[in-house]
Amino acid sequence: MAKQEISPSVIRRLPRYHRFLGELAEKGIVRISSKELSQQMGLTASQIRQDLNCFGGFGQQGYGYNVKALQTEIGQILGISLHRRAILIGLGNLGRAIANHVSFPQCGCELIGLFDSNPFVAGRDLDGMPIHHTDTLAGFCHQEKPELAVLCVPEQAAPMLAQQLVALGVRAFWNFSHGDLHFDDPSILVENVHLADSLLTLTYGLRQQDTHSESEG
Amino acid sequence: MAKQEISPSVIRRLPRYHRFLGELAEKGIVRISSKELSQQMGLTASQIRQDLNCFGGFGQQGYGYNVKALQTEIGQILGISLHRRAILIGLGNLGRAIANHVSFPQCGCELIGLFDSNPFVAGRDLDGMPIHHTDTLAGFCHQEKPELAVLCVPEQAAPMLAQQLVALGVRAFWNFSHGDLHFDDPSILVENVHLADSLLTLTYGLRQQDTHSESEG
Repeated sequence: MAKQEISPSVIRRLPRYHRFLGELAEKGIVRISSKELSQQMGLTASQIRQDLNCFGGFGQQGYGYNVKALQTEIGQILGISLHRRAILIGLGNLGRAIANHVSFPQCGCELIGLFDSNPFVAGRDLDGMPIHHTDTLAGFCHQEKPELAVLCVPEQAAPMLAQQLVALGVRAFWNFSHGDLHFDDPSILVENVHLADSLLTLTYGLRQQDTHSESEG
Repeated sequence: MAKQEISPSVIRRLPRYHRFLGELAEKGIVRISSKELSQQMGLTASQIRQDLNCFGGFGQQGYGYNVKALQTEIGQILGISLHRRAILIGLGNLGRAIANHVSFPQCGCELIGLFDSNPFVAGRDLDGMPIHHTDTLAGFCHQEKPELAVLCVPEQAAPMLAQQLVALGVRAFWNFSHGDLHFDDPSILVENVHLADSLLTLTYGLRQQDTHSESEG
């Protein structure tokens, strides 16, 4: 398996396959053909076959995919069982929502620390997990060695904080602050999340529909 | 301009162009070449030229793009000035975070109503905006005619709520509940948001790096 050559767009689809197969398994579905899987996922069957062939291919011609085996395999490719140590910084509404809403273990991560720079927030807890002051980040990172940081801090605070965290050994950032983070060092991984982009896609879709119905009417 | 033929992947990049050009304009940058724009956005220059040519092309050979004009044009294509009437349902941490964190006007939407089914939440307000009980949705929709609904409700509640909203005239859903929404009617637009997918991409990236350094070491 030449994993290095897999295109980023295939990699971006893997979490979706993993999630989808998990839902099928929960429903008790044991096998699925690439045709059925494609219909349910809104992809073409040949796309699915191509994607999964990148990883050696798990299907048997005329027999379909074993749902659980395929999900397990994709989970291993994604590294879900490795429990990356993660910290989350910024416990405003968004940080709290991420901490509560996202299943870190299902994403191969373990949330080991929460931090906020506001002294009225630090010292409290979130569902029993203590919120530390950001002043204590250095000591915490030296001891606990988190690899991944979730940034839910204001845009202006994010770049300096990220630099500090890189110096403390953090190698991956899940960035919810409004500005994009960039690093010259390609070994530092960043996912800049822009929630608004998908809302704009809806806005565009509504406009297209209006244009169509106007031109028809 | 044959807008109907534009591929979904180009459309998905438009919000990013729009955001990026806005940041350049804020920095006082008036013109940018496709080469510079591509370097800053991590795309190839030919990709950018192709994308923008889909909409008639705004650049002049050897002269670059006018940042503000291009942003305005993309904004018009996206329909940003149309102020779609939107409601948000479910004012837990995530709903509050979305309401606070996302700039609805910059996405061509106006948030006109907040709703929650919890009687202890309904009746309160969020930054001065009243939170209504979901029992009042029908009356509100008849009067205010929202087109778009942001769903921050539990997974089990989302499908029935969405059906109810479609019957009340809602045509687009920004869905943050864990399960995907699907409609047989293709005129109903859905963006199912899966925050965890981008976290899994980071997990995968970390695993790839480990694999590389192991094979080198």
